[in-house]
Amino acid sequence: MSFRATVLTLYPEMFPGALGQSLAGRALDAGTWDLQTVQIRDFAVDRHRTVDDTPAGGGAGMVMRADVLARAIDQASPRGDTRPRLLMSPRGKPLTQEKVRTLAAGPGATILCGRFEGVDQRVIEARGLEEVSIGDFILSGGEPAALVLLDAVVRLLPGVMGNEVSGEEESFENGLLEHPHYTRPQVFEGMTIPEVLTSGNHGKIAAWRRAEAERLTRERRPELLAAAQGLTK
Amino acid sequence: MSFRATVLTLYPEMFPGALGQSLAGRALDAGTWDLQTVQIRDFAVDRHRTVDDTPAGGGAGMVMRADVLARAIDQASPRGDTRPRLLMSPRGKPLTQEKVRTLAAGPGATILCGRFEGVDQRVIEARGLEEVSIGDFILSGGEPAALVLLDAVVRLLPGVMGNEVSGEEESFENGLLEHPHYTRPQVFEGMTIPEVLTSGNHGKIAAWRRAEAERLTRERRPELLAAAQGLTK
Repeated sequence: MSFRATVLTLYPEMFPGALGQSLAGRALDAGTWDLQTVQIRDFAVDRHRTVDDTPAGGGAGMVMRADVLARAIDQASPRGDTRPRLLMSPRGKPLTQEKVRTLAAGPGATILCGRFEGVDQRVIEARGLEEVSIGDFILSGGEPAALVLLDAVVRLLPGVMGNEVSGEEESFENGLLEHPHYTRPQVFEGMTIPEVLTSGNHGKIAAWRRAEAERLTRERRPELLAAAQGLTK
Repeated sequence: MSFRATVLTLYPEMFPGALGQSLAGRALDAGTWDLQTVQIRDFAVDRHRTVDDTPAGGGAGMVMRADVLARAIDQASPRGDTRPRLLMSPRGKPLTQEKVRTLAAGPGATILCGRFEGVDQRVIEARGLEEVSIGDFILSGGEPAALVLLDAVVRLLPGVMGNEVSGEEESFENGLLEHPHYTRPQVFEGMTIPEVLTSGNHGKIAAWRRAEAERLTRERRPELLAAAQGLTK
Protein backbone atom coordinates (compact mmCIF):
# COMPACT_ATOMS: atom_id res chain seq x y z
CA MET A 1 0.00 0.00 0.00
CA SER A 2 1.24 3.45 -0.78
CA PHE A 3 2.29 6.12 1.70
CA ARG A 4 -0.75 8.23 2.62
CA ALA A 5 -0.33 11.82 3.76
CA THR A 6 -3.24 13.87 5.07
CA VAL A 7 -2.54 17.54 5.77
CA LEU A 8 -4.85 19.58 8.00
CA THR A 9 -4.49 23.23 7.12
CA LEU A 10 -6.20 26.58 6.69
CA TYR A 11 -4.44 26.84 3.31
CA PRO A 12 -5.11 23.64 1.34
CA GLU A 13 -4.24 25.57 -1.83
CA MET A 14 -0.59 25.49 -0.70
CA PHE A 15 -0.55 21.76 -1.54
CA PRO A 16 0.84 19.91 -3.38
CA GLY A 17 2.84 23.04 -4.28
CA ALA A 18 6.46 22.08 -4.84
CA LEU A 19 5.49 18.45 -4.14
CA GLY A 20 3.54 18.41 -7.38
CA GLN A 21 6.77 18.80 -9.40
CA SER A 22 9.93 16.83 -10.01
CA LEU A 23 10.55 13.57 -8.11
CA ALA A 24 7.72 13.98 -5.61
CA GLY A 25 5.27 15.05 -8.30
CA ARG A 26 6.06 12.09 -10.54
CA ALA A 27 5.72 9.75 -7.55
CA LEU A 28 2.37 11.38 -6.72
CA ASP A 29 1.16 10.86 -10.29
CA ALA A 30 2.41 7.26 -10.19
CA GLY A 31 0.50 6.52 -6.99
CA THR A 32 3.64 5.86 -4.95
CA TRP A 33 2.17 8.19 -2.39
CA ASP A 34 -1.12 9.94 -1.87
CA LEU A 35 -1.80 13.46 -0.58
CA GLN A 36 -5.11 14.66 0.84
CA THR A 37 -5.77 18.05 2.38
CA VAL A 38 -8.40 18.86 4.97
CA GLN A 39 -9.63 22.45 5.39
CA ILE A 40 -9.72 22.98 9.14
CA ARG A 41 -12.25 25.77 8.75
CA ASP A 42 -14.84 23.23 7.57
CA PHE A 43 -14.92 21.91 11.15
CA ALA A 44 -15.73 25.20 12.85
CA VAL A 45 -18.78 25.06 15.07
CA ASP A 46 -20.21 28.54 14.50
CA ARG A 47 -21.64 30.30 11.49
CA HIS A 48 -18.62 32.62 11.25
CA ARG A 49 -16.45 29.50 10.79
CA THR A 50 -14.15 30.62 13.61
CA VAL A 51 -11.03 28.49 14.12
CA ASP A 52 -9.16 30.60 16.67
CA ASP A 53 -9.68 32.76 19.72
CA THR A 54 -7.66 35.02 22.03
CA PRO A 55 -5.10 33.34 24.33
CA ALA A 56 -6.20 32.54 27.86
CA GLY A 57 -4.13 34.74 30.16
CA GLY A 58 -3.75 37.45 27.51
CA GLY A 59 -0.98 38.29 25.09
CA ALA A 60 -0.48 38.83 21.38
CA GLY A 61 -1.90 36.70 18.60
CA MET A 62 -4.56 34.04 18.45
CA VAL A 63 -4.70 30.37 19.45
CA MET A 64 -6.29 27.59 17.38
CA ARG A 65 -9.27 26.08 19.17
CA ALA A 66 -9.08 22.56 20.57
CA ASP A 67 -12.68 21.66 19.73
CA VAL A 68 -12.42 22.65 16.07
CA LEU A 69 -9.09 20.87 15.59
CA ALA A 70 -10.35 17.73 17.37
CA ARG A 71 -13.26 17.47 14.93
CA ALA A 72 -10.92 17.86 11.96
CA ILE A 73 -8.47 15.29 13.34
CA ASP A 74 -11.21 12.80 14.16
CA GLN A 75 -12.38 12.81 10.57
CA ALA A 76 -8.90 12.79 9.01
CA SER A 77 -7.41 10.24 11.38
CA PRO A 78 -10.19 8.12 12.92
CA ARG A 79 -9.65 5.48 15.58
CA GLY A 80 -7.73 2.58 14.05
CA ASP A 81 -5.72 4.78 11.70
CA THR A 82 -2.16 3.65 12.42
CA ARG A 83 -0.48 6.69 10.88
CA PRO A 84 1.34 9.00 13.30
CA ARG A 85 -0.32 12.36 13.96
CA LEU A 86 2.25 15.10 13.60
CA LEU A 87 2.00 18.77 14.52
CA MET A 88 4.52 21.00 12.79
CA SER A 89 5.75 23.32 15.55
CA PRO A 90 8.96 25.12 16.54
CA ARG A 91 8.46 23.57 19.99
CA GLY A 92 8.74 20.08 18.57
CA LYS A 93 11.50 17.52 18.42
CA PRO A 94 13.96 18.50 15.67
CA LEU A 95 13.42 16.50 12.48
CA THR A 96 16.31 14.18 11.66
CA GLN A 97 17.08 11.92 8.72
CA GLU A 98 16.51 8.98 11.06
CA LYS A 99 12.96 10.19 11.73
CA VAL A 100 12.45 10.73 8.00
CA ARG A 101 13.46 7.11 7.37
CA THR A 102 11.08 5.86 10.07
CA LEU A 103 8.20 7.80 8.56
CA ALA A 104 9.02 6.59 5.04
CA ALA A 105 8.91 2.98 6.25
CA GLY A 106 5.43 3.48 7.72
CA PRO A 107 1.89 3.79 6.35
CA GLY A 108 1.89 7.58 6.09
CA ALA A 109 1.21 10.55 8.33
CA THR A 110 -1.52 12.94 9.37
CA ILE A 111 0.04 16.38 9.58
CA LEU A 112 -1.54 19.32 11.36
CA CYS A 113 -0.22 22.72 10.29
CA GLY A 114 -0.40 25.25 13.13
CA ARG A 115 -0.98 28.95 12.48
CA PHE A 116 -1.11 32.08 14.64
CA GLU A 117 0.46 31.88 18.11
CA GLY A 118 -0.14 28.14 18.38
CA VAL A 119 -2.57 25.35 19.11
CA ASP A 120 -4.59 24.78 22.31
CA GLN A 121 -2.50 22.42 24.40
CA ARG A 122 -5.47 20.21 25.25
CA VAL A 123 -5.98 18.94 21.72
CA ILE A 124 -2.26 18.13 21.48
CA GLU A 125 -2.64 15.89 24.52
CA ALA A 126 -6.12 14.51 23.81
CA ARG A 127 -5.25 13.45 20.26
CA GLY A 128 -1.66 12.40 20.92
CA LEU A 129 -0.11 14.88 18.50
CA GLU A 130 3.64 14.49 18.07
CA GLU A 131 5.27 17.91 17.74
CA VAL A 132 7.95 18.05 15.05
CA SER A 133 10.20 21.04 14.33
CA ILE A 134 12.24 21.59 11.20
CA GLY A 135 14.46 24.18 12.87
CA ASP A 136 14.96 27.02 15.32
CA PHE A 137 13.21 29.67 13.29
CA ILE A 138 9.63 30.91 13.05
CA LEU A 139 7.46 30.38 9.97
CA SER A 140 4.14 31.97 9.08
CA GLY A 141 2.59 28.55 9.69
CA GLY A 142 3.23 24.83 9.60
CA GLU A 143 2.60 24.53 5.87
CA PRO A 144 6.14 25.20 4.55
CA ALA A 145 7.45 22.82 7.23
CA ALA A 146 5.00 20.11 6.15
CA LEU A 147 6.15 20.53 2.54
CA VAL A 148 9.74 20.03 3.66
CA LEU A 149 8.95 16.97 5.78
CA LEU A 150 6.98 15.31 2.98
CA ASP A 151 9.66 16.09 0.41
CA ALA A 152 12.28 14.41 2.61
CA VAL A 153 10.06 11.37 3.19
CA VAL A 154 8.81 10.90 -0.37
CA ARG A 155 12.27 10.73 -1.91
CA LEU A 156 12.95 7.66 0.25
CA LEU A 157 9.84 5.76 -0.87
CA PRO A 158 10.58 2.67 -2.96
CA GLY A 159 11.17 3.51 -6.60
CA VAL A 160 11.26 7.29 -6.24
CA MET A 161 15.01 7.79 -6.50
CA GLY A 162 16.28 4.32 -7.40
CA ASN A 163 19.95 3.73 -6.86
CA GLU A 164 20.75 7.37 -6.27
CA VAL A 165 19.55 7.11 -2.67
CA SER A 166 22.03 4.56 -1.45
CA GLY A 167 25.16 6.64 -1.86
CA GLU A 168 23.72 9.74 -0.31
CA GLU A 169 22.18 7.87 2.57
CA GLU A 170 25.45 6.21 3.48
CA SER A 171 27.11 9.57 3.41
CA PHE A 172 24.56 10.95 5.82
CA GLU A 173 24.66 7.88 8.02
CA ASN A 174 28.29 8.34 8.93
CA GLY A 175 27.18 11.49 10.73
CA LEU A 176 29.44 13.84 8.78
CA LEU A 177 28.76 16.66 6.37
CA GLU A 178 29.37 15.72 2.76
CA HIS A 179 32.77 16.15 1.16
CA PRO A 180 33.10 18.71 -1.68
CA HIS A 181 31.99 17.67 -5.17
CA TYR A 182 33.60 18.34 -8.53
CA THR A 183 32.72 17.59 -12.10
CA ARG A 184 33.71 18.65 -15.60
CA PRO A 185 35.10 20.95 -16.87
CA GLN A 186 38.57 20.00 -15.62
CA VAL A 187 39.52 23.68 -15.38
CA PHE A 188 37.03 26.33 -14.28
CA GLU A 189 38.30 29.93 -14.14
CA GLY A 190 41.81 28.63 -13.54
CA MET A 191 40.77 26.24 -10.76
CA THR A 192 41.37 22.56 -11.36
CA ILE A 193 39.72 19.49 -9.90
CA PRO A 194 41.87 18.14 -6.99
CA GLU A 195 44.39 15.76 -8.53
CA VAL A 196 43.51 12.81 -6.32
CA LEU A 197 39.99 12.69 -7.76
CA THR A 198 41.28 12.10 -11.28
CA SER A 199 43.98 9.64 -10.18
CA GLY A 200 41.80 6.54 -10.56
CA ASN A 201 43.08 5.34 -7.18
CA HIS A 202 39.86 4.42 -5.40
CA GLY A 203 41.46 3.95 -2.00
CA LYS A 204 43.06 7.38 -2.10
CA ILE A 205 39.83 8.95 -3.35
CA ALA A 206 37.83 7.42 -0.47
CA ALA A 207 40.44 8.55 2.06
CA TRP A 208 40.45 12.09 0.63
CA ARG A 209 36.67 12.30 0.76
CA ARG A 210 36.57 11.05 4.32
CA ALA A 211 39.26 13.54 5.40
CA GLU A 212 37.44 16.41 3.66
CA ALA A 213 34.13 15.41 5.25
CA GLU A 214 35.79 15.40 8.65
CA ARG A 215 37.46 18.74 8.01
CA LEU A 216 34.22 20.40 6.92
CA THR A 217 32.31 18.93 9.84
CA ARG A 218 34.98 20.09 12.29
CA GLU A 219 34.87 23.60 10.85
CA ARG A 220 31.11 23.94 10.57
CA ARG A 221 29.43 21.53 12.97
CA PRO A 222 31.92 20.35 15.61
CA GLU A 223 29.07 18.85 17.66
CA LEU A 224 28.32 16.41 14.82
CA LEU A 225 31.96 15.37 14.58
CA ALA A 226 32.11 14.57 18.27
CA ALA A 227 28.97 12.44 17.93
CA ALA A 228 30.29 10.70 14.79
CA GLN A 229 33.50 9.79 16.57
CA GLY A 230 31.60 8.40 19.51
CA LEU A 231 33.00 10.99 21.90
CA THR A 232 29.48 11.86 22.98
CA LYS A 233 26.29 9.90 22.62
CA MET B 1 13.15 49.70 -1.29
CA SER B 2 11.50 46.34 -0.99
CA PHE B 3 13.21 43.03 -0.21
CA ARG B 4 14.27 41.39 -3.48
CA ALA B 5 14.62 37.61 -3.71
CA THR B 6 16.06 35.92 -6.78
CA VAL B 7 15.90 32.12 -6.83
CA LEU B 8 18.11 30.10 -9.19
CA THR B 9 16.50 26.74 -9.79
CA LEU B 10 15.79 23.95 -12.26
CA TYR B 11 12.14 24.14 -11.12
CA PRO B 12 10.98 27.77 -11.35
CA GLU B 13 7.39 26.47 -11.40
CA MET B 14 7.78 25.60 -7.69
CA PHE B 15 7.69 29.36 -6.96
CA PRO B 16 5.99 31.28 -5.47
CA GLY B 17 4.12 28.11 -4.39
CA ALA B 18 3.09 28.45 -0.75
CA LEU B 19 4.65 31.95 -0.78
CA GLY B 20 1.90 33.10 -3.14
CA GLN B 21 -0.74 32.57 -0.41
CA SER B 22 -1.55 33.98 2.98
CA LEU B 23 0.77 36.54 4.59
CA ALA B 24 3.65 36.13 2.14
CA GLY B 25 1.31 36.17 -0.84
CA ARG B 26 -0.42 39.36 0.24
CA ALA B 27 2.95 40.98 0.88
CA LEU B 28 4.09 39.89 -2.59
CA ASP B 29 0.97 41.41 -4.16
CA ALA B 30 1.50 44.58 -2.12
CA GLY B 31 5.11 44.94 -3.34
CA THR B 32 6.58 44.53 0.16
CA TRP B 33 8.90 42.01 -1.41
CA ASP B 34 9.70 40.83 -4.89
CA LEU B 35 10.41 37.31 -6.15
CA GLN B 36 12.20 36.46 -9.39
CA THR B 37 13.16 33.00 -10.56
CA VAL B 38 16.01 32.13 -12.89
CA GLN B 39 15.98 28.85 -14.82
CA ILE B 40 19.50 27.51 -14.46
CA ARG B 41 19.09 25.40 -17.60
CA ASP B 42 18.92 28.58 -19.69
CA PHE B 43 22.62 29.06 -18.94
CA ALA B 44 23.81 25.69 -20.20
CA VAL B 45 26.58 25.89 -22.76
CA ASP B 46 25.65 22.96 -25.02
CA ARG B 47 22.68 22.23 -27.25
CA HIS B 48 21.42 19.50 -24.88
CA ARG B 49 21.16 22.17 -22.15
CA THR B 50 23.22 20.04 -19.78
CA VAL B 51 23.50 21.37 -16.23
CA ASP B 52 25.19 18.41 -14.51
CA ASP B 53 27.84 15.77 -15.04
CA THR B 54 29.23 12.71 -13.26
CA PRO B 55 31.27 13.32 -10.08
CA ALA B 56 35.05 13.50 -10.43
CA GLY B 57 36.42 10.47 -8.58
CA GLY B 58 33.28 8.41 -9.21
CA GLY B 59 30.28 7.66 -7.10
CA ALA B 60 26.50 7.88 -7.29
CA GLY B 61 24.50 10.82 -8.59
CA MET B 62 25.37 13.88 -10.58
CA VAL B 63 27.06 17.18 -9.77
CA MET B 64 25.88 20.60 -10.97
CA ARG B 65 28.48 22.21 -13.23
CA ALA B 66 30.46 25.21 -12.04
CA ASP B 67 30.52 26.93 -15.44
CA VAL B 68 26.76 26.76 -15.96
CA LEU B 69 25.99 27.95 -12.43
CA ALA B 70 28.53 30.77 -12.67
CA ARG B 71 26.80 32.12 -15.78
CA ALA B 72 23.43 32.00 -14.05
CA ILE B 73 24.76 33.68 -10.91
CA ASP B 74 26.55 36.39 -12.87
CA GLN B 75 23.32 37.40 -14.53
CA ALA B 76 21.15 37.13 -11.39
CA SER B 77 23.63 38.75 -9.05
CA PRO B 78 26.04 40.96 -11.02
CA ARG B 79 28.99 42.81 -9.50
CA GLY B 80 27.69 45.55 -7.20
CA ASP B 81 24.62 43.58 -6.12
CA THR B 82 24.86 43.81 -2.33
CA ARG B 83 22.46 40.94 -1.64
CA PRO B 84 24.02 37.85 -0.05
CA ARG B 85 24.34 34.81 -2.31
CA LEU B 86 22.97 31.78 -0.51
CA LEU B 87 23.22 28.12 -1.44
CA MET B 88 20.63 25.89 0.24
CA SER B 89 22.62 22.83 1.30
CA PRO B 90 22.60 20.27 4.16
CA ARG B 91 26.33 21.07 4.54
CA GLY B 92 25.56 24.69 5.36
CA LYS B 93 25.36 26.65 8.57
CA PRO B 94 22.06 25.87 10.31
CA LEU B 95 19.47 28.60 9.76
CA THR B 96 18.57 30.46 12.95
CA GLN B 97 16.01 33.13 13.77
CA GLU B 98 18.92 35.52 14.22
CA LYS B 99 20.04 34.88 10.63
CA VAL B 100 16.44 35.29 9.47
CA ARG B 101 16.32 38.70 11.16
CA THR B 102 19.61 39.75 9.56
CA LEU B 103 18.36 38.77 6.12
CA ALA B 104 15.03 40.56 6.65
CA ALA B 105 16.90 43.76 7.54
CA GLY B 106 18.90 43.60 4.30
CA PRO B 107 18.21 44.31 0.62
CA GLY B 108 17.24 40.73 -0.29
CA ALA B 109 18.96 37.51 -1.27
CA THR B 110 20.04 35.52 -4.28
CA ILE B 111 19.29 31.89 -3.51
CA LEU B 112 20.75 28.96 -5.44
CA CYS B 113 18.83 25.70 -5.09
CA GLY B 114 21.11 22.69 -5.41
CA ARG B 115 19.89 19.41 -6.89
CA PHE B 116 21.41 15.95 -7.39
CA GLU B 117 24.49 15.08 -5.31
CA GLY B 118 25.55 18.69 -5.00
CA VAL B 119 27.27 21.65 -6.62
CA ASP B 120 30.82 21.85 -7.96
CA GLN B 121 32.91 23.25 -5.10
CA ARG B 122 34.73 25.70 -7.35
CA VAL B 123 31.66 27.82 -8.08
CA ILE B 124 30.86 27.95 -4.36
CA GLU B 125 34.29 29.47 -3.77
CA ALA B 126 34.55 31.60 -6.91
CA ARG B 127 31.16 33.26 -6.36
CA GLY B 128 31.29 33.44 -2.56
CA LEU B 129 28.19 31.34 -2.00
CA GLU B 130 27.13 31.09 1.65
CA GLU B 131 25.84 27.58 2.38
CA VAL B 132 22.70 27.56 4.54
CA SER B 133 21.02 24.45 5.93
CA ILE B 134 17.49 24.26 7.30
CA GLY B 135 18.19 20.98 9.11
CA ASP B 136 19.93 17.62 9.31
CA PHE B 137 17.80 15.86 6.73
CA ILE B 138 18.03 15.41 2.97
CA LEU B 139 15.61 17.02 0.53
CA SER B 140 15.08 16.32 -3.16
CA GLY B 141 16.60 19.73 -3.80
CA GLY B 142 17.10 23.18 -2.35
CA GLU B 143 13.68 24.45 -3.44
CA PRO B 144 11.61 23.44 -0.37
CA ALA B 145 14.38 24.86 1.82
CA ALA B 146 14.32 28.15 -0.11
CA LEU B 147 10.55 28.35 0.38
CA VAL B 148 11.03 27.91 4.13
CA LEU B 149 13.80 30.49 4.36
CA LEU B 150 11.81 33.08 2.41
CA ASP B 151 8.65 32.41 4.45
CA ALA B 152 10.59 33.02 7.67
CA VAL B 153 12.15 36.22 6.30
CA VAL B 154 9.06 37.71 4.66
CA ARG B 155 6.94 37.56 7.82
CA LEU B 156 9.47 39.88 9.48
CA LEU B 157 9.36 42.52 6.75
CA PRO B 158 7.77 45.81 7.84
CA GLY B 159 3.99 45.72 7.68
CA VAL B 160 3.61 42.00 6.97
CA MET B 161 2.53 40.87 10.41
CA GLY B 162 2.12 44.17 12.25
CA ASN B 163 2.00 43.95 16.00
CA GLU B 164 1.72 40.19 16.05
CA VAL B 165 5.46 39.84 15.48
CA SER B 166 6.65 41.56 18.60
CA GLY B 167 5.23 39.10 21.12
CA GLU B 168 6.42 36.04 19.30
CA GLU B 169 9.84 37.48 18.69
CA GLU B 170 10.39 38.25 22.32
CA SER B 171 9.36 34.76 23.20
CA PHE B 172 11.90 33.34 20.80
CA GLU B 173 14.61 35.73 21.89
CA ASN B 174 14.65 34.41 25.43
CA GLY B 175 16.03 31.20 23.90
CA LEU B 176 13.30 28.96 25.26
CA LEU B 177 10.57 26.92 23.61
CA GLU B 178 7.18 28.53 23.87
CA HIS B 179 4.89 27.83 26.82
CA PRO B 180 1.61 25.94 26.13
CA HIS B 181 -1.34 27.92 24.77
CA TYR B 182 -5.01 27.72 25.69
CA THR B 183 -8.14 29.43 24.46
CA ARG B 184 -11.92 28.99 24.66
CA PRO B 185 -13.85 26.83 25.28
CA GLN B 186 -13.11 26.80 29.01
CA VAL B 187 -13.76 23.06 29.14
CA PHE B 188 -12.70 20.73 26.30
CA GLU B 189 -13.50 17.03 26.73
CA GLY B 190 -13.38 17.47 30.48
CA MET B 191 -10.05 19.32 30.44
CA THR B 192 -10.03 22.87 31.77
CA ILE B 193 -7.72 25.77 31.08
CA PRO B 194 -5.10 26.02 33.89
CA GLU B 195 -6.63 28.18 36.62
CA VAL B 196 -3.78 30.67 36.78
CA LEU B 197 -4.45 31.76 33.19
CA THR B 198 -7.98 32.87 34.04
CA SER B 199 -6.97 34.47 37.36
CA GLY B 200 -6.35 37.91 35.92
CA ASN B 201 -3.11 38.08 37.94
CA HIS B 202 -0.62 39.16 35.30
CA GLY B 203 2.43 38.56 37.46
CA LYS B 204 1.40 34.99 38.19
CA ILE B 205 0.54 34.39 34.54
CA ALA B 206 3.97 35.60 33.43
CA ALA B 207 5.69 33.46 36.06
CA TRP B 208 3.64 30.37 35.07
CA ARG B 209 4.47 30.87 31.38
CA ARG B 210 8.16 31.29 32.11
CA ALA B 211 8.20 28.15 34.28
CA GLU B 212 6.34 26.14 31.64
CA ALA B 213 8.69 27.36 28.91
CA GLU B 214 11.67 26.29 31.01
CA ARG B 215 10.08 22.91 31.78
CA LEU B 216 9.35 22.20 28.12
CA THR B 217 12.81 23.32 27.05
CA ARG B 218 14.43 21.16 29.74
CA GLU B 219 12.43 18.12 28.61
CA ARG B 220 12.82 18.57 24.87
CA ARG B 221 15.90 20.69 24.18
CA PRO B 222 18.17 20.76 27.21
CA GLU B 223 20.99 22.26 25.12
CA LEU B 224 18.85 25.37 24.52
CA LEU B 225 18.12 25.74 28.22
CA ALA B 226 21.78 25.65 29.07
CA ALA B 227 22.45 28.36 26.49
CA ALA B 228 19.49 30.47 27.70
CA GLN B 229 20.77 30.34 31.27
CA GLY B 230 24.22 31.39 30.18
CA LEU B 231 25.78 28.10 31.30
CA THR B 232 27.34 27.70 27.88
CA LYS B 233 27.94 30.27 25.20
